[in-house]
Amino acid sequence: MSSETRIPNATIERIALYVRPLERLLREGVEVVSSRKVALLCRVRSAQVRKDLSFFGEFGVRGVGYSVRDLVRETRRILGTDREWRLAIVGLGNMGTAMAQDLNSAKQCYRLVAAFDTDPEKVGKTVLPGLTIEPASEITRRTQEEGVHIGVIAVPASQAQVVADRLFQAGVKAILNFSPIQVREPECCHVENVDFSVSLDNLAYHLGRKTKP
Amino acid sequence: MSSETRIPNATIERIALYVRPLERLLREGVEVVSSRKVALLCRVRSAQVRKDLSFFGEFGVRGVGYSVRDLVRETRRILGTDREWRLAIVGLGNMGTAMAQDLNSAKQCYRLVAAFDTDPEKVGKTVLPGLTIEPASEITRRTQEEGVHIGVIAVPASQAQVVADRLFQAGVKAILNFSPIQVREPECCHVENVDFSVSLDNLAYHLGRKTKP
Repeated sequence: MSSETRIPNATIERIALYVRPLERLLREGVEVVSSRKVALLCRVRSAQVRKDLSFFGEFGVRGVGYSVRDLVRETRRILGTDREWRLAIVGLGNMGTAMAQDLNSAKQCYRLVAAFDTDPEKVGKTVLPGLTIEPASEITRRTQEEGVHIGVIAVPASQAQVVADRLFQAGVKAILNFSPIQVREPECCHVENVDFSVSLDNLAYHLGRKTKP
Repeated sequence: MSSETRIPNATIERIALYVRPLERLLREGVEVVSSRKVALLCRVRSAQVRKDLSFFGEFGVRGVGYSVRDLVRETRRILGTDREWRLAIVGLGNMGTAMAQDLNSAKQCYRLVAAFDTDPEKVGKTVLPGLTIEPASEITRRTQEEGVHIGVIAVPASQAQVVADRLFQAGVKAILNFSPIQVREPECCHVENVDFSVSLDNLAYHLGRKTKP
């Protein structure tokens, strides 16, 4: 694909969704998969799967399907998950700790290299084997030292912007934000907000429509 | 609005996003807000805000703005968050515990009424004042007894579908799923997946485009 091609964000999000079941199929030794099967596994329409993949060239065979191996390799290349991204997490409460553990068991391309907290009781404790919680005052120095690409924010709302600003100043270009406020970022940076209360409101909306008189 | 009007999901998601800063403005005593201000707080375009709100009637005054109080009341009515929804959570690991605590401090419309875990060591422990962890074998009986509307799944991937099926069988119509698999639901039900690995892949994609040669 041309590096100038503008791929819609929604397409990227769906492709990120396709990767996990595809990787499972690969591990299970499945060699070929149809767009219908991918659609079924990911709960989207199969025409949507074909359209999304068509942005990135012709790597399926009509009537046969896609090679699972090719598809995993291509989707990883598209997403940029075929290399290692280094992560730092700030805030090791329940959410941050859950996140750190999940990261450890998730994809190899994400590697947690630093963890910070303001609580002196937490500093020095081990999050994962080989990873110790450091004081928040060390964020700038240690983030630069470790060449962190992605910062994960799991602090209370009141601290989120301050932490984000410090990470940006240290050269971090991407942030995954678990705090319940929208974080402001410089033009060159990207923030993804994970906000379950929006998901809850969405459920309430659907329930409300079902239970209306 | 006619109950037949089909509102796009993306609109509902954005409206769920507008609510939080609007509620904050209301608490701060702000009376009138422009679509531009809402847009700024929520990081969307102001034309988008006006379009989204127009689905639900004319409650702004051109050149003046929206009454914050009316807007909060209307968005709550639209979303169905003007009534109480009863929640049960299954899985009280770090993620489930974080979720339970966040729920407790979040909107009044969501009330956690039951918590379940398979781990005998966790059963009987207190999650929140007045809320004790019950054994997973009690899900069906207790969910019906408590009239649960929304089930929250925070169990490992391998158990997620089994737990979802049990909740659906007990009459739960909506599920918020934190496990890293897509849960299958009956036609009448709705599932929202909170999957931070999709968000991470999204960040990797943006970073990859920035750092391309």
